[in-house]
Amino acid sequence: MIEQQLIDRLRRTFELHGFAPLQTRAVEPLEQLLRKGETSKEVYVLRRLQAAADEPEPDSSALGLHFDLTVPFARYVLEHAGKLQFPFRRYQIQPVWRGERPQEGRYREFWQADIDVVDRDTLPFHYEVELPLVIADALAGLPLPPIRMHVNNRKLAQGFYQGIGLSDPEQVLRAVDKLDKIGPAGVARELSAIGATDAQIKACLALAEINSPDASFVDAVRALKVRDPLLEEGLSELAAVVEAAAEHAPGLLVADLRIARGLDYYTGTVYETVMRGHESIGSICSGGRYDNLASAGNDRFPGVGLSIGISRILGRLFGQQALTISRSVPTCVLVALPDEASRPACMRIATALRRRGIATEVSPSAAKYGKQIRYAERRGIPYVWFPGAGDGRDQVKDIRSGEQVDAEADHWTPLPEDLTPMVSAAE
Amino acid sequence: MIEQQLIDRLRRTFELHGFAPLQTRAVEPLEQLLRKGETSKEVYVLRRLQAAADEPEPDSSALGLHFDLTVPFARYVLEHAGKLQFPFRRYQIQPVWRGERPQEGRYREFWQADIDVVDRDTLPFHYEVELPLVIADALAGLPLPPIRMHVNNRKLAQGFYQGIGLSDPEQVLRAVDKLDKIGPAGVARELSAIGATDAQIKACLALAEINSPDASFVDAVRALKVRDPLLEEGLSELAAVVEAAAEHAPGLLVADLRIARGLDYYTGTVYETVMRGHESIGSICSGGRYDNLASAGNDRFPGVGLSIGISRILGRLFGQQALTISRSVPTCVLVALPDEASRPACMRIATALRRRGIATEVSPSAAKYGKQIRYAERRGIPYVWFPGAGDGRDQVKDIRSGEQVDAEADHWTPLPEDLTPMVSAAE
Repeated sequence: MIEQQLIDRLRRTFELHGFAPLQTRAVEPLEQLLRKGETSKEVYVLRRLQAAADEPEPDSSALGLHFDLTVPFARYVLEHAGKLQFPFRRYQIQPVWRGERPQEGRYREFWQADIDVVDRDTLPFHYEVELPLVIADALAGLPLPPIRMHVNNRKLAQGFYQGIGLSDPEQVLRAVDKLDKIGPAGVARELSAIGATDAQIKACLALAEINSPDASFVDAVRALKVRDPLLEEGLSELAAVVEAAAEHAPGLLVADLRIARGLDYYTGTVYETVMRGHESIGSICSGGRYDNLASAGNDRFPGVGLSIGISRILGRLFGQQALTISRSVPTCVLVALPDEASRPACMRIATALRRRGIATEVSPSAAKYGKQIRYAERRGIPYVWFPGAGDGRDQVKDIRSGEQVDAEADHWTPLPEDLTPMVSAAE
Repeated sequence: MIEQQLIDRLRRTFELHGFAPLQTRAVEPLEQLLRKGETSKEVYVLRRLQAAADEPEPDSSALGLHFDLTVPFARYVLEHAGKLQFPFRRYQIQPVWRGERPQEGRYREFWQADIDVVDRDTLPFHYEVELPLVIADALAGLPLPPIRMHVNNRKLAQGFYQGIGLSDPEQVLRAVDKLDKIGPAGVARELSAIGATDAQIKACLALAEINSPDASFVDAVRALKVRDPLLEEGLSELAAVVEAAAEHAPGLLVADLRIARGLDYYTGTVYETVMRGHESIGSICSGGRYDNLASAGNDRFPGVGLSIGISRILGRLFGQQALTISRSVPTCVLVALPDEASRPACMRIATALRRRGIATEVSPSAAKYGKQIRYAERRGIPYVWFPGAGDGRDQVKDIRSGEQVDAEADHWTPLPEDLTPMVSAAE
C-alpha cells in the first residue's frame, strides 16, 4: 500500500506537468534489447516451455524482458512516430528485469518511474531546465529523506578537454568517470596512459573538483583559463539549470563537475541524485539530455529524460522501517453484525457509506461485539458501526478513543485524516 | 490513458469494499506454475542470456512468468500466512503472460484484475453473495456495455448427478461443460459412453437448460423430482446469491445451470460474465468458490475469487472504437509564451495553477500565438493562458468556444468537466 501510494503521487505530479501515461509490454525483441552491447549479459530471454525441441534457440525472433524503460520507449517512438504529437511528453512507471545477483539497491525485478520529453529533429534546451524541477516537485510530495541532485553538462566537459588540447574527450571522460572508484591518483595514471601531459591531468582533476549550489562554479572554471566555444555553451547551460532550480526548488541542486554518467549517449545536461543520509545506495534518479534516442532514415529524436529508482528507494527505506502507514487495509469503517439475519441490512449501511466515498466492510461473522471490534483493531480500521445500538438508532465508535456517537449512514463522515490510509515517515 | 483510468476506477471500488492492494513479482518458480498440469504448455520460461553453456536447462530452480494471478496469490498466502490477518481480502491488477497464438480476446501479455477473500480452515458462504456485488459495483462505474453474470453452484450440479445415481459427478461435469461446443447430442453421446442411461442423460440435459433471473430456477429444478442433500444445499446457496443481486444490482445476474467453469478447483458458486452484444469474446469475468487455494500441513485456505479480463474487454472495445477520451494529454492549460525571455514568468504561472490541481504546460516555444494555439488544439488541451494579454493582466481562452476572459493564476478554475481527461462510450 505504501508503494502504491508513492507511485500514485508520482503519477499525479507527472500529470500535473502534462506528461501522458505510457505502458509498454514487458517483452521486446532481443535484437532491440541488445542494440547497446554493454547490458546484454543482464537480459532475461523467454522460451515457451513446450517449444518443440528442434525450434531454434534465441534467434532474430527471440524475446527478452526489458531491462530499462528507455529501450522500449525508443522502440515505441519509432513505431508510432507518425501518430505522435511532438514534442512528446510521457511518463512510464513499470517493473524492469535484470539477471543480476540481488543485493541492497540491486534487484532482479525492480520498478522505475521515467519521464522524458522527446522531439523530432531538434529539442530546445529549456527542457533540460524543466525536467529536474518536475522530479523535485514529484519527490517533494513524498515522505522521503531530502534529496540532492548533482548536475553536470557534457558540452562543458568536452569543451574543456578540447580546450586544453586533449584530442579524445570520450577517453578522458571514461577515465574521469572512475574518480570515485580509483581516486585522483588512479585517474591521473589512466590519463597519462592515453598521452595526457601533467598540466592537462592537473587541469582535468581541477575541473572535476569544482561544485557549487549556485552559478559560482562558472567563475571557478574560468579561473582555470581554458577557452573553447563548446565549453562556453556548456557553462551557460549549466548555469541556467542551476539558477532555475535555485528559484523553484531551493537546495535541490548542485553543479558538480565530476558527474559523467558512464559512457552513455548523453550530449548535454546529465543528472544524478542522492538521498541524503543514504548516499551508499547510489543514485536514486539519473538521466540526461540525448541527441538521438532513436533514428529511422532521416528522422532523429532528441530528448531529455530522468528515471527514478522506486525499488532502490523503497528497498532501503523499508529495510530501515523508515516509512509507516496508518492502517493495513483501505477499510475506514467496519459495520458490526448483530446477528447473521441482519446481514442484508448491514450491507445496505455499507452501500450508503461507500456511495459517499467511505471504504466499508461488513463484519465477517455475528460474533460477540468484542470479537468484532478486535477484527477492526488488528487491521487498524478506525471505526466500528453498530446498527441500532442507540435505542434503535445506529451508532459509530472511534475504537481508538472509545467515543461512540449516534450516526446516520447518509450523513456521518469520518475525520478527514481517517478517510484513507496515510503514509508517513517513521519517527 | 483510457486503460489507466479504467484500472484506477476498479482500484477505487475494490478499496471502497475494503480490499487491500497486492502486487506480486512477475516470476514464480516453474514448479509452482506447473502444479496444475493443464496450463503447463502456455508458460514462458526465463533464461539468462549469458548463462553458462553448462548450466542446466529448466530444472527445479527454473523461473517462469505467471500465467494468472491465482497461482502467485496462493504462493503469497502460504509464504505469509503467519503475518496475514484472516479473512484476507486483496485485489491484484497486473499483466500475466501465456505463450498462446494471439487472436481477439487472447493475448500473450494481458491484464487481469482479481479480487479474492481467503480464510484459514473455513470460509463463510456469505462471501459468495458479496463478491459478485463488488464486481457489479466496479463495472457499473465504467463506460462499458451492460454485463450479465451467469451463476451456478457446484454442489447443486454434483448433488443432482448423485441424486439420479451417476457415480462420477466429475466426469458428468466434464461432459456437460462441452454443451456450447458439441451441443446436446454430443453431450448425450459422451454421457452414454460413461454409462449413463437415457433417463439420466435426459435429466442432465434438462438441468442444464434451466436458467432464471430470480429464484424461480429452484422450482424448475424441483420439478425434475431429484432428491439429494447436497443438491438442496446448492439450491439454497444459489437462490441466496441471485436474490441478493436482485436487490443490490438489478438485472446483473442470472442463475444458469449449464455453467461449469471447466475442471477447475471450484467447490461452490461459479461465475461467468458476458458483455452484452459482445458474447463472442467469451467470459470477461470468471471465478468461483474454492475450498483449497493452497495448503501446508494441516492448514487449508478456502476462498472465493473473481477475475476481470481487462485486456479482453479493452481489446474488443478499442477494436470497435467504442471508447473515447476528451483529450490525448493530461494537460488542462497551455501557458502561451510571449517571448523566450518570459519563460521564467510563465513557469511561475504554471506552478500557481498546478498548486491548485490544474495540469499545466508552458508552451515549447515563443512562436506566433496562432501556432501555440494549434499546439494545444492538436492535443485537445482546452485552455490557453495569455500572460499580460488584457492591458497587462493575464487572460485565458477556451479555444473551443473562443471565449477569452481576464484571469489570475491563483484564482481561476476550469469547468469541472475539463479538469482531467474524461473517458466515455463513443456515440
